[in-house]
Amino acid sequence: MAAMMRRIIGAPCMTRILRVAGAQTGPIQRADTRRQTLDRLIALLEQAAAAGAKMVVFPELALTTFFPRWPMERQELDTWFERTMPNPHCQALFDRARDLGVGFYLGYAELTEQGQHFNTAITVGPDGQVLGKYRKIHLPGSVEIKDRQKYQQLEKRYFEYGDLGFPAFRGPKDWGSPVLGMLICNDRRWPEGWRCYGLQGVELMLMGYNSAAYDPNGGEGESAELRTFHSTLAAQSNAYMNATWAVSVAKAGNEDGAGLIGGSVIIDPNGIIVAQAKTLGDEIILADVDFDACKQGKEKMFNFAQHRRPQWYGRIVEQVGAEAPPA
Amino acid sequence: MAAMMRRIIGAPCMTRILRVAGAQTGPIQRADTRRQTLDRLIALLEQAAAAGAKMVVFPELALTTFFPRWPMERQELDTWFERTMPNPHCQALFDRARDLGVGFYLGYAELTEQGQHFNTAITVGPDGQVLGKYRKIHLPGSVEIKDRQKYQQLEKRYFEYGDLGFPAFRGPKDWGSPVLGMLICNDRRWPEGWRCYGLQGVELMLMGYNSAAYDPNGGEGESAELRTFHSTLAAQSNAYMNATWAVSVAKAGNEDGAGLIGGSVIIDPNGIIVAQAKTLGDEIILADVDFDACKQGKEKMFNFAQHRRPQWYGRIVEQVGAEAPPA
Repeated sequence: MAAMMRRIIGAPCMTRILRVAGAQTGPIQRADTRRQTLDRLIALLEQAAAAGAKMVVFPELALTTFFPRWPMERQELDTWFERTMPNPHCQALFDRARDLGVGFYLGYAELTEQGQHFNTAITVGPDGQVLGKYRKIHLPGSVEIKDRQKYQQLEKRYFEYGDLGFPAFRGPKDWGSPVLGMLICNDRRWPEGWRCYGLQGVELMLMGYNSAAYDPNGGEGESAELRTFHSTLAAQSNAYMNATWAVSVAKAGNEDGAGLIGGSVIIDPNGIIVAQAKTLGDEIILADVDFDACKQGKEKMFNFAQHRRPQWYGRIVEQVGAEAPPA
Repeated sequence: MAAMMRRIIGAPCMTRILRVAGAQTGPIQRADTRRQTLDRLIALLEQAAAAGAKMVVFPELALTTFFPRWPMERQELDTWFERTMPNPHCQALFDRARDLGVGFYLGYAELTEQGQHFNTAITVGPDGQVLGKYRKIHLPGSVEIKDRQKYQQLEKRYFEYGDLGFPAFRGPKDWGSPVLGMLICNDRRWPEGWRCYGLQGVELMLMGYNSAAYDPNGGEGESAELRTFHSTLAAQSNAYMNATWAVSVAKAGNEDGAGLIGGSVIIDPNGIIVAQAKTLGDEIILADVDFDACKQGKEKMFNFAQHRRPQWYGRIVEQVGAEAPPA
């Protein structure tokens, strides 16, 4: 019957609609055990699967507290890193996801056999195989420990810059073989990364983050409201300008005394918010992602082949910092 | 006294706050005379100056109707172009602005001595001198005339691609020597152009546009509301991601039977809308632009020298169109 329908219509009429979940987590405290945290992630996975989701996006560094906020020596530091993935600490999440036939994006701290440290995310398919891997390129924070500050931001000290570029990859055939991309936290504010994926035809961008809600050291700074606005604005506009869906998922709330914004969102290729978290705790958001809704943008307004003029974009790769015209 | 104050404080304490106006126009019909149109622009200039504005931003192609909507032969076409700037048709605007000590951005169709056609904008200083010139790089529309369509979009037919790059320039010392940049219409949706200016330390982006509110040929398409949202979203996010102010100004309303969105805005370096047009007619919007409000973003979140990783941005200049991974 299906074969007959295809003959009648003249082409396979496979839908390319995937129910996707963002699995925002509340804070993961330094004192929480790995098992406690994994149980929360599995509970979110099961909740999303029960709601029909086939793909679940967890936050950046989803297995632990945001440990770059503290100075520590190498031996202690390395306890926050995963030496293999999966590993006995998180095998249960992989097993449960495969049993449920659900894929997932997971952010974690990666320690390689060669001793390199990265802020990493993987996307795992519904069959448990790793579909793609990304290592964070836009590391914020500082290398040096700042004197007399209770809370640090030491990503530039603890991680090497990502060395895998922006590698788009395909989701499973069951999902309609969509083009997927990954970014991590601060990356979502950098249009260069989005465009590198846009130039690979990305249809769904997967992103997790841990973003400060205020200065935890009590200095002046932007409000949590403004920081959440920035997070959402960057996701909306870059989704629009690359004609892609985007899922952007927070670890939120008061983590070891430092506040993290929530505001997890699912964005459509028009830049419109179709789902948004309401809490700063463990919370599932859901949307039916129609990959073919990317076509309008990719074929018209953002038809790159027709409209881009790279001969004028040289500064983007030829210089790093800003160089103002003489005063 | 001023010299004494400087010695006491240790540095000049010049403020860098400039009152800027967006001068949205309603439609300019094909039958309107050049003099009628210029009188409207001068009236808007005077209204802005009376409100204290020192810089006024007019739309793209502000002297005429949006003529690329019709097929025409070269001889008729060239009547819509300016062969010099200023010229007798618009000298009165230049004179009045200089008398008022007000600078302005003006979009117009440029025909060079060599016979080249560009969609151009200039910024004129308060002394009447041209401070900067820009020729639109991201031309939308088509080269070919589409059969049986009442309204065309023939920018790719009538204009050559801009050949000046994205050249930032300084405003006058009286304004605090701000770094200024210009884009035109469709350019505002392309983060590459913004970033090229961001890499020159831009503090105020000047932009005019004529953007369709709906398909004038009656086909399906995006609503005026969605198109206005896109226009505003692109301006907000690119202002934020480059830590710059932006003024984005429409020619709006029903022009020769084709609808144009309004939605002119002034955006701060946080991406927040600080002024927005309420009508589809001639209307002034105003804001006090503090150039030093760009510092926070340029020195922290978007400190390019610290955080950009151009070795991974190669695709942006090495390929034009999208190339998806194999299915």
